[in-house]
Amino acid sequence: MTAERVWTAALLVIGDEILSGRTQDKNVAQVATWLNDQGIRLAEVRIVPDEAERIAETVNALRAAHDYLFTTGGIGPTHDDITVDAIAAAFGVPVVIHPQARAILEDYYRDRPGGLNEARLRMARVPEGAELLVNPASGAPGVRIDNVYALAGVPYIAASILEALTGKLEGGRPVVSVTVGARAAESEVADLLRETEAAHPGVAIGSYPFFREGRYGANFVIRSEDGELARECGDALAARLREAGYEPIEGGI
Amino acid sequence: MTAERVWTAALLVIGDEILSGRTQDKNVAQVATWLNDQGIRLAEVRIVPDEAERIAETVNALRAAHDYLFTTGGIGPTHDDITVDAIAAAFGVPVVIHPQARAILEDYYRDRPGGLNEARLRMARVPEGAELLVNPASGAPGVRIDNVYALAGVPYIAASILEALTGKLEGGRPVVSVTVGARAAESEVADLLRETEAAHPGVAIGSYPFFREGRYGANFVIRSEDGELARECGDALAARLREAGYEPIEGGI
Repeated sequence: MTAERVWTAALLVIGDEILSGRTQDKNVAQVATWLNDQGIRLAEVRIVPDEAERIAETVNALRAAHDYLFTTGGIGPTHDDITVDAIAAAFGVPVVIHPQARAILEDYYRDRPGGLNEARLRMARVPEGAELLVNPASGAPGVRIDNVYALAGVPYIAASILEALTGKLEGGRPVVSVTVGARAAESEVADLLRETEAAHPGVAIGSYPFFREGRYGANFVIRSEDGELARECGDALAARLREAGYEPIEGGI
Repeated sequence: MTAERVWTAALLVIGDEILSGRTQDKNVAQVATWLNDQGIRLAEVRIVPDEAERIAETVNALRAAHDYLFTTGGIGPTHDDITVDAIAAAFGVPVVIHPQARAILEDYYRDRPGGLNEARLRMARVPEGAELLVNPASGAPGVRIDNVYALAGVPYIAASILEALTGKLEGGRPVVSVTVGARAAESEVADLLRETEAAHPGVAIGSYPFFREGRYGANFVIRSEDGELARECGDALAARLREAGYEPIEGGI
């Protein structure tokens, strides 16, 4: 295991629609994957309702505990979009209209029906001192203040803001993962998993069982910041599985 | 708005595989939907890594803040399944073998290859004082201690444990939601949404925009514990949308 600094992030998902079960969240997985590519580890996720006080207190807890905090949701034009206000409250600053955001929106809505109405102008509101995050997908920018990055909740818009932010955050080494699958019930190979992990300090092996087409199987995911070590451990695990009578399937099933 | 007691639950998702982005979580949505049917509101979700200390401190924070705490993940037979140990640590009790769980597993594995080996017997471990949650899908039961309900991470197994628990938890009135869709950019109808919500105390209206087949649209979700009020508000919103020149689509788009 390396002694390099580990960079961590938290994600705060703001959304009654997720907590009601109406909408299946897609942002956790995409933010997680993107962060890992930046060498930043997603260390915690919280999902809270559209309540300003809950959002503000959670922002303050998470921004203090991690290098970065990302939020998704609540930065649109309607009355239930209160993320900017909640983040401003968390920082103890007022909400202001960002001149560049207003210019972007004026431009974006110039030739669209309705123009830049009052609701749309809400999307130019930022906590005082915030910078904009470019949003190539639609007019409304994301917002950064200090180590807090507020993204849209609509997944393709969040993805677009992340895309524009790629390579711009300081991070460490991405975690490399190597997957080995086998048509084994995980409870049949628990010992060899534990022993293989113990023999390779600096890796963690996760076991993810499934039941498909009437057969049991599992994928074993070896994670490490040291890619070579992860691959060595994967080879060792494959050899142990083969010894035990299971055909190891590189890359997983 | 009713003055009835509101029952709340938190969900703690335990899983490196979710935080790494490898696996798309499916438990938040299904637990949320099931809880609502029980008259219990999912008020908060946290996702933490497979680290015993992080799990234990989060269990203690969430079980104190809500009527119920559900956990998913980490109750299987492998070395990375540490939820029972972490919950026991949170309660300050030892881990013991539950005799009924052992009997269930003996029965389940009697005619299966490998029998009840040591790894599988791990699934009979519970925090001292815990009860079992019936798991019709596979042998290994879930675990309840006090107001904490530990479910499997594999979605169909979690669903099976919830199914067996249906109707057994005390709750209040389910939140009723009524959806009205329109081929409107949400920023064009923000005012009438806000006004309609304000005119119907006891409802909350969420606005969920989308962009499909080259056209903007949005679904407006009206939520209330009072079903009649939600339906009245839905009718009022539909009328306002029609006045503004948008065809309201009952049930959403």
